[in-house]
Order: sequence, then structure tokens, then C-alpha cells
Amino acid sequence: MPSSPHTQSYAARIKHFTNPTAKLILETMERKKSNLAVSVDVTDPNDLLAIIDAVGPHTHVDIVENFSYSLIESLQGLAAKHDFLYFEDRKFADIGNTVALQYSSGVHKIASWSHLTNAHPVPGPSIIKGLSSVGLPLGRGLLLLAEMSTQGSLAVGAYTEEAVRMARQHRDFVIGFIAQRRMDGIGAEKEEDASEEDFLILTPGIGLESKGDNMGQQYRTPHEAVYVSGCDVIIVGRGIYGTDPKAVSTIAAKAERYMAEGWAAYLARTGQQ
Amino acid sequence: MPSSPHTQSYAARIKHFTNPTAKLILETMERKKSNLAVSVDVTDPNDLLAIIDAVGPHTHVDIVENFSYSLIESLQGLAAKHDFLYFEDRKFADIGNTVALQYSSGVHKIASWSHLTNAHPVPGPSIIKGLSSVGLPLGRGLLLLAEMSTQGSLAVGAYTEEAVRMARQHRDFVIGFIAQRRMDGIGAEKEEDASEEDFLILTPGIGLESKGDNMGQQYRTPHEAVYVSGCDVIIVGRGIYGTDPKAVSTIAAKAERYMAEGWAAYLARTGQQ
Repeated sequence: MPSSPHTQSYAARIKHFTNPTAKLILETMERKKSNLAVSVDVTDPNDLLAIIDAVGPHTHVDIVENFSYSLIESLQGLAAKHDFLYFEDRKFADIGNTVALQYSSGVHKIASWSHLTNAHPVPGPSIIKGLSSVGLPLGRGLLLLAEMSTQGSLAVGAYTEEAVRMARQHRDFVIGFIAQRRMDGIGAEKEEDASEEDFLILTPGIGLESKGDNMGQQYRTPHEAVYVSGCDVIIVGRGIYGTDPKAVSTIAAKAERYMAEGWAAYLARTGQQ
Repeated sequence: MPSSPHTQSYAARIKHFTNPTAKLILETMERKKSNLAVSVDVTDPNDLLAIIDAVGPHTHVDIVENFSYSLIESLQGLAAKHDFLYFEDRKFADIGNTVALQYSSGVHKIASWSHLTNAHPVPGPSIIKGLSSVGLPLGRGLLLLAEMSTQGSLAVGAYTEEAVRMARQHRDFVIGFIAQRRMDGIGAEKEEDASEEDFLILTPGIGLESKGDNMGQQYRTPHEAVYVSGCDVIIVGRGIYGTDPKAVSTIAAKAERYMAEGWAAYLARTGQQ
């Protein structure tokens, strides 16, 4: 009998995916011994580059001032230098035709440089169809937001179940979820065998202590998210870059600490330590 | 006993709102005898300006290539020339801290020029708090997406009810909904008196014939949306600008037809004809 996917190593799980981005993420995590995604929400492009040079992968391009394609070229240079992937946390949430344009076009041309992006399932399956028409030929991957970490989130119950059903219908492009816990088998019909199902779970709202901010965000520790809840990647934002984007050595030290805690929780979960 | 708000004229409903953008929308509709919002989803800024000069108000800036602030200055000139408002259909869908940055900053600086924008309620009330912190001091208004016009939308049932409850708690900033029908009183508690409640309903998915596209969008006619379902503003996109953004006279003629049908349905609904 196969063990539950999240008790297996990242390397062993590569074979569960056909999508090239899913394979690349699992390979990269294994090689770098890191399951940390750093979310850099700053508005100055120089701060963005400095923080990424200090730490790693993940940002919101749509809050960067003076965005230009040369910024993307700089980001691609850093990705090669530091061996990481980009996840543009764009949270697409429109109808198929519109998201296809938003993903491919405009100032940001997200599909041309971001390995991974995400979408809310609220418009229904058309949002996957629209994004997939752009991203799949480029080998990109998509996460659906099945849950959110904010107080009063409406992504619960039947909404979450329907999100997982939509993903199950589009396994070539949808490689996992933004969620708080494992989604394997959620919302599956009685006759479906979901026992070997494997979705990557990326989880936001991570802090070194459990608590919240004044805008409804709630935090869990890396251990709670990875060991207790079975999430695969921890997403950390202000917990790493704080309020001073110029404090590069402090930021690098914090990133190291989250990386170590996230990886230790993964090793414990998979019986490797 | 007061009549239901949507049977009253746009002018008579101004007094139901404190938000300056809500008042401005109602005044402008009454003055221009138009309840049409034209959604212009094109990627070339010259096409965008030509179409807007031919017809009117509403677009997705994040699919426009070579976006620059001078484009916004051109758009503001057109708004003054043609007496219309901007509704950036951004569909914000992130946590409070992030949407506040997306709304105020980045290349697009939406809050600085767009009278109205919209958000998905899925993150919970924090999304309203974040957007309101930027938009309310500028007199801007927000719509929540309570329903969507796509097949398999998850914005139904308890989700829709919760969206209306969130709006009811933030009447100073949330002036209405993207929805398919009236939302007044939806999800109200038994002890709440919602009999005089008035939300503006802007509705997408409008075509001169009822049908769908190949990406899950479903269409209703202006009469169905305004007269039968009580919506206040019809949002029309490809139905007006079609596949050739350079066919300006055809586009203007189509806009005229939607405007006439939408206004006739409103007059019939309010007993003015």
C-alpha cells in the first residue's frame, strides 16, 4: 500500500506530476534543501532586487513602481544566480478571456517569466481554461486558492471542495493549492480513488510565533504548517523583510531561520530525521 | 410605505448614499440618460483611447501594453470631454495589506484616477478595510463581486449572502455589487430592517442576444438585466467593440444601441414610460 504523498520525500513525489513546473519545484526544493517561498511586497524596484538577492523567490509585480521589462531581466539574472523559481502571487479572479489577457499581456507579461501563478476558483472552471491556454504551452503551473489565512475568509466548506474538484479536472496545469492543510481527496466522489492523489500545498500566513496583524491576517509557525498540517511550501513575507527593506543582513538572517525551521519540519514529517 | 429602491429614479436614489462616488454615478447616469458601462479589454493603448473616445467608461488597465502615467492623463482628458467615470474592474482578491499597496501603488496607481473599483469578498472583511484605507479619503467607491456570470461560479448561496453582510457593515465605502439581480436585504438577520436598503447593481455578461462564448461566459439582454432582474448598470465589452478595435463608427453605433436598450428598460422599470 502506498504511503500518503506528504509522508514521502519531495524527490519521490516528482513522479506524481506531469507538469514541468511541478517537477522543477520539487527538484529545486530537494537540491536547495528549502521549502521557503519569500513573498516580497515592496514598491521600490531597487528594494525588490536587493531583498531578492539576499533571499529568494516570490513577489507581487503589480505593486512595484516604475516596473519595466528590464526589471524582469534583472530578476531572471537573480533567479539563475540563486537557483530559484518565480511565483507571481497574482490571484487571478476574472473570466477566462480576461485572465488570458492579464496573464499574457499588459506591462507585466507574467506568463513570460513567472514559473508559477495562482487563481481564485470563484469564476468557475473557465478561469483555468483561460490561464491554461496561455501557460500550458510554456510549461507553466497554476495553484488554486482553496483556502485563505484571513479572518472571515469565504473560502471554506463547499467552496474549498469545489476548488479541489476543479483542480482534479485539470491536473496537467493545476499542480496544487494555496491552502492551510492537505487537499488530497477533498470533495472526491465516493467512486473516485483519490488515495494516490498528490497536490502541492503552498501556505501563506507563516510567522515564527503564531499571532495576527491589524488587517485580519493570522499566522502559524513553520512547524505547525509543515509538520502538523502537511503543507509543502511555507510563504513568508513581512516576517522576513520586516519594515526596513534596506536591512539586507537582518533579512538574510531571518530567511535562514525560516528556511531551517521549514526544512526541519519537512524532515521530521517524512521520517528523515 | 417607501417603494423598493430600484423602482425609483436614479436621481431619487442619490439620497440613499453618503459615498461621493455613488452620488456621482447616479447623477451622471441621470444627466447622460445612460446606464451603460463599456468594458474595453484591449492591449494597445491607442486602440484603448480610440474606443473610449468613441464610447465611454470602463477598462482593465492591467492588460494594456506600454502602460504609462501619460496614458492616464489622456484618459482623464477623455473623461472630462465625454462626462463619464472610470471603473477599473481590477477584481482585487488579496489580503488587506497587499490590496492597499496594489490599489495605491505600482505602475497603475488605480486609486489616483479610477472613481470605482471592485473586489472579491473571498478574503473576508480585511479586503474592504485595506482598500478603504486608501480609497475612502479620496472619495472613491467599491463594489463587491457578490455573483459572477460564468458557468460554475462559486459565488452563490452562502457566499453571496456573506458578501452582502460584509457590504452592509461598510456602507461608507461599499456602494453596491457586481451581481445578476437585486441584493437589497439578502442575508439580513431577522431583526434587521433592510426594507429601505439600496445597493447599486452593476451587471456583466450583457449581449443583444442571450447566449455564451467558448470560455464559460453567459449573456443576458439589457431588458432581462435591467427590467426583469433590477440591475442598475449594464457592463458590455466585446458585444460593443467586437474583434476590430479600429472600427470606430461600428463601435459607436453598437454602444448607442446598448445605451438605448438599457435606458428604455430603466424607464419601464421606474414607470417613466
